Amino acid sequence: MRQVRFHYPSFDRPEVGTLRGEVIIAQGKEFSLDQVRLLAPCTPTKIICLGRNYAEHAKELGNEVPERPLFFFKPPSAVIGPGEEIVLPRSSRVDHEAELAVVIGRRCRNVRAKDAMDVILGYTCMNDVSNREAQGWEQNWVRAKGFDTSAPLGPVIVTTDEIEGPFHVMLRLNGEVKQDGSTRDLIFSIPEIIEEISSFMTLEPGDVIATGTPAGVGPLSFGDEVEVEIEGIGTLRNHVRQGDH
Amino acid sequence: MRQVRFHYPSFDRPEVGTLRGEVIIAQGKEFSLDQVRLLAPCTPTKIICLGRNYAEHAKELGNEVPERPLFFFKPPSAVIGPGEEIVLPRSSRVDHEAELAVVIGRRCRNVRAKDAMDVILGYTCMNDVSNREAQGWEQNWVRAKGFDTSAPLGPVIVTTDEIEGPFHVMLRLNGEVKQDGSTRDLIFSIPEIIEEISSFMTLEPGDVIATGTPAGVGPLSFGDEVEVEIEGIGTLRNHVRQGDH
Repeated sequence: MRQVRFHYPSFDRPEVGTLRGEVIIAQGKEFSLDQVRLLAPCTPTKIICLGRNYAEHAKELGNEVPERPLFFFKPPSAVIGPGEEIVLPRSSRVDHEAELAVVIGRRCRNVRAKDAMDVILGYTCMNDVSNREAQGWEQNWVRAKGFDTSAPLGPVIVTTDEIEGPFHVMLRLNGEVKQDGSTRDLIFSIPEIIEEISSFMTLEPGDVIATGTPAGVGPLSFGDEVEVEIEGIGTLRNHVRQGDH
Repeated sequence: MRQVRFHYPSFDRPEVGTLRGEVIIAQGKEFSLDQVRLLAPCTPTKIICLGRNYAEHAKELGNEVPERPLFFFKPPSAVIGPGEEIVLPRSSRVDHEAELAVVIGRRCRNVRAKDAMDVILGYTCMNDVSNREAQGWEQNWVRAKGFDTSAPLGPVIVTTDEIEGPFHVMLRLNGEVKQDGSTRDLIFSIPEIIEEISSFMTLEPGDVIATGTPAGVGPLSFGDEVEVEIEGIGTLRNHVRQGDH
């Protein structure tokens, strides 16, 4: 199943529906994709991200591969949907990071790696937009990773009955391929990550785990078009603008 | 006003009410305190905490006072209410940290320090329960500060029309005073903190800012009773148990 959240002009609130080709089915009705605005496909209570989970990416920023998963949070206020603008904070460098995002399907704690697939609803694309200047000095990456618009998410969640990894994760900047990796190269696998996180923290439906970015990260500038594409899922496209400082 | 959230046995979901003496007013009815179970007084979409915001506390853990506010997140899944149990993670040391928590009253961004009072709903008590072992090696304090039950919150929110700082923040462990400080000694003031956070991140109603802990932190053990008391607000009391490992 391909699940979307969308805004339809005459509705008060966002709807959740199923995408079949170019048509969304929701509340027993059909909506064509050009009648609606797609939103981030879920509303996480928390986003848990992995740092340095691809060896080639750890190397490109001069970091060691961590012995245990390196986690950090993004807050729900950082989420934007497909087509929304990434607003750059004041910084000498803000980078794109294409990632496979895992969406949790049910409340869970103490999940064993072998049972991890049972708690996953599906997969979507994420851009872990990162303020490198702040990342250089912050103890915890709250400014670096938590600013508004730093978590573009979407366009659809493809459920686990329709797709299984490994996933081909790509990023294009103004049409040019900058990142091109495979979750085959994850240092910590998705089941291992879920076992580790859920050993100390309850996961809720709609929560997101961003699995880390492959090599090829680089800076965003005003006017850029940035696309995260994952084969079998789709393309998350956002434009970049400068904040009003 | 003294605002509480509570569970009443015959209600499907938590209610919000106003506490007057020993009576809660909610939905035009009165409930006596002994008929209900108090819950955490708000449901934050995020909790932003300050580290090392009292000079004496920074010193006791061998840290410098930061040049800019040191922020970290706790996730909503970490919140427990008054009377709920703190469950210790597997760790050689888990500490109590008594804190004044600021509760946000309305959605806001780019708030100037001089206008910060306008976006505050009120104040409550928090215990920033901290896994020091994980804090020693984690880049971001997700395991150290984000585990389930690490954010006891309550018992009431006292609104800004009823109380103003500075606040006297105290912690008792099994009846013995361990922390005893005043928000007069905050390195970064509440208005400064709100200006800084809201310069990059949207705050939502119910979001919590934990303002840091005064000196006197120390370890929790199985069976402990830990109380955070703030004059004019009340006492947040929790018992401690070991997790099932």
